[in-house]
Amino acid sequence: MSQETIKQLRTWLAEQNIDALLVTQPQNRSYLSGWLNDDTEGSGSLLIGQQQQILLTNPLYAEVAEHEAVGWQVLVPPAREYAAAIVSLAKEHGWSKIGFESRALSYAEYEKISSAAEGAFTLQPFEQTVAETLRQVKQPHELDLLRKAIAITDETFTHLCQWIQPGMTEKEVAWEIARKMVELGADGPSFSSIVASGPNGSMPHAHPGDRRIQLGELVTIDMGARYKGYCADMTRTICLGEPAEPRMREVYDTVLRAMKTCEQELRAGMTSREGDALTRDVLAEAGLAEYYIHSTGHGVGLQVHEGPSLSGRAPEDATLPVNSVVTVEPGVYIPGWSGTRVEDCVLIKEGGVEVLTQSPTTLVLPR
Amino acid sequence: MSQETIKQLRTWLAEQNIDALLVTQPQNRSYLSGWLNDDTEGSGSLLIGQQQQILLTNPLYAEVAEHEAVGWQVLVPPAREYAAAIVSLAKEHGWSKIGFESRALSYAEYEKISSAAEGAFTLQPFEQTVAETLRQVKQPHELDLLRKAIAITDETFTHLCQWIQPGMTEKEVAWEIARKMVELGADGPSFSSIVASGPNGSMPHAHPGDRRIQLGELVTIDMGARYKGYCADMTRTICLGEPAEPRMREVYDTVLRAMKTCEQELRAGMTSREGDALTRDVLAEAGLAEYYIHSTGHGVGLQVHEGPSLSGRAPEDATLPVNSVVTVEPGVYIPGWSGTRVEDCVLIKEGGVEVLTQSPTTLVLPR
Repeated sequence: MSQETIKQLRTWLAEQNIDALLVTQPQNRSYLSGWLNDDTEGSGSLLIGQQQQILLTNPLYAEVAEHEAVGWQVLVPPAREYAAAIVSLAKEHGWSKIGFESRALSYAEYEKISSAAEGAFTLQPFEQTVAETLRQVKQPHELDLLRKAIAITDETFTHLCQWIQPGMTEKEVAWEIARKMVELGADGPSFSSIVASGPNGSMPHAHPGDRRIQLGELVTIDMGARYKGYCADMTRTICLGEPAEPRMREVYDTVLRAMKTCEQELRAGMTSREGDALTRDVLAEAGLAEYYIHSTGHGVGLQVHEGPSLSGRAPEDATLPVNSVVTVEPGVYIPGWSGTRVEDCVLIKEGGVEVLTQSPTTLVLPR
Repeated sequence: MSQETIKQLRTWLAEQNIDALLVTQPQNRSYLSGWLNDDTEGSGSLLIGQQQQILLTNPLYAEVAEHEAVGWQVLVPPAREYAAAIVSLAKEHGWSKIGFESRALSYAEYEKISSAAEGAFTLQPFEQTVAETLRQVKQPHELDLLRKAIAITDETFTHLCQWIQPGMTEKEVAWEIARKMVELGADGPSFSSIVASGPNGSMPHAHPGDRRIQLGELVTIDMGARYKGYCADMTRTICLGEPAEPRMREVYDTVLRAMKTCEQELRAGMTSREGDALTRDVLAEAGLAEYYIHSTGHGVGLQVHEGPSLSGRAPEDATLPVNSVVTVEPGVYIPGWSGTRVEDCVLIKEGGVEVLTQSPTTLVLPR
């Protein structure tokens, strides 16, 4: 990430009246340092002061971190004693107040640092820092990477529509998705693909299993490629051959209309709750409200779920900034019957959105 | 998991003088409830009291949890307000002291529950609970699943040795591993495979990249299948054609000797530190100590890294129980040159070990 970002972070440190920030949230680490690190526990953290940019890691990652985190001082504390290292750096630089990311530090780690400090400094929790705020607005080079991740996802889906046949298991489909994405240059899938067929479609986060896909049933496929750390996210519902029941097409068409309506109305400056209502109102009018059991969407970037959200649970004053990228993903899940969801990624602009996902929304694939 | 396990957990609750345990560590959740859940943040937690077995989750996972967590009461708190739900359950059941897993609860979540409690109960942190202790000793049905995961890993490696050719990229190899594992019935890989060729071999946790594998260089492949939640872990170093430098074979043979020596000497009742020394001494005698920058091994099971460990950093009195399963994985990493590691999974028994991994340790694959 650019020195401009670090400068904004330092301005924030001064505003919050803290001397340094301890960054343990894996994607914030990547965003700020350029180190596309593994998010294994204990892989490391950043310490940023007004003059310091320090990356703490362990011997397993040191060489990778030095390659990727240009301009950062990479330190390897002996015996992975991060708490002791943080305390000694705080003393060396005279820090008396250190901020930390309270959602990305375990209670145990907090206690360890806090007790090692022996009063030399205090730790101040932040549920969010300026890093999350900055990450909501995509910079041009980030948008390029997101567009590429989305293009790979689209191309994978095109391949899938030709390749998929009745009798294949959900798991086979999920792993063909992964294989194709990598063939097309992705780092890999940005999350474990969901392939939920027939009755499994009523579980929004079903594990792909050994169930064989049949003609005439709804199959929900939720997938995304990761490209140089950036995550695409897309859902399509397909049916091999004509749907077995007319209701399948009716429900699908309503969900698709909810997505399209939202994409037409959504724009920068709207609140998260207003954005959420755009799909919910359509499904409510159709009498499907009770089966729509999640929010309309979420930001995507280095994480597959990040800010801003389109959610009725968002703070009342949360709004959608220009150049944020969010999903729009209404769904209907009827236990014991089936389910359907469609999902695009869109770029939020001044007067509307640019739909980034290009995959068709045709329900029926003739077989 | 059996009711016997829950009974042991309840005995532990009584010994610790706590009324209930909040379980947020994903694999402890799976072990105790049978819910092979996603480990996405916010997917849920368990609350276990002397009479209660409650699983808290959100609407996305409720149907899956009800299928998988037999005998558990599945509750879906409105608006995902877990803290409020925990407080109201504590009041309903008269709990005044609730234990929690301090390494698996964020500081923010701790604060949220603690402040919602308004003094109705206290929260007591545990870095480890009896769940981790129980998980170290594999039950027969767990060993069956681990053996299956390891067998799939071996079969994948057999396929790989025939399939791999000079000119392929590290990434292509990593994803062929995933594809083959799934074809053989795995849930998927138990972790992102490492394929580190030539100079990349000096980074123990290198990301597989676009580097093309060449004849005569060392290629370290660290891979494992997951089967019904259980994780295999294996490393082999191979060389397509004869090694370009005699030193490659020398270093490889020494590392292999370190693994074999450890496998011959290791047995139940040994301390973690003694187990670690078994490989370290061999590499030290060969003058390679400074290049051996990690521990000898770790337990495997529902997690790819769990207890017990073979580590010089383990508590002095930590020992290896009968029927634990650990990796033995010495390695040598010479920055700017190359690296090599070999790794087996072994079952710890009274008088020695049973080596579970069956893949050959032949360095050279003629090409």
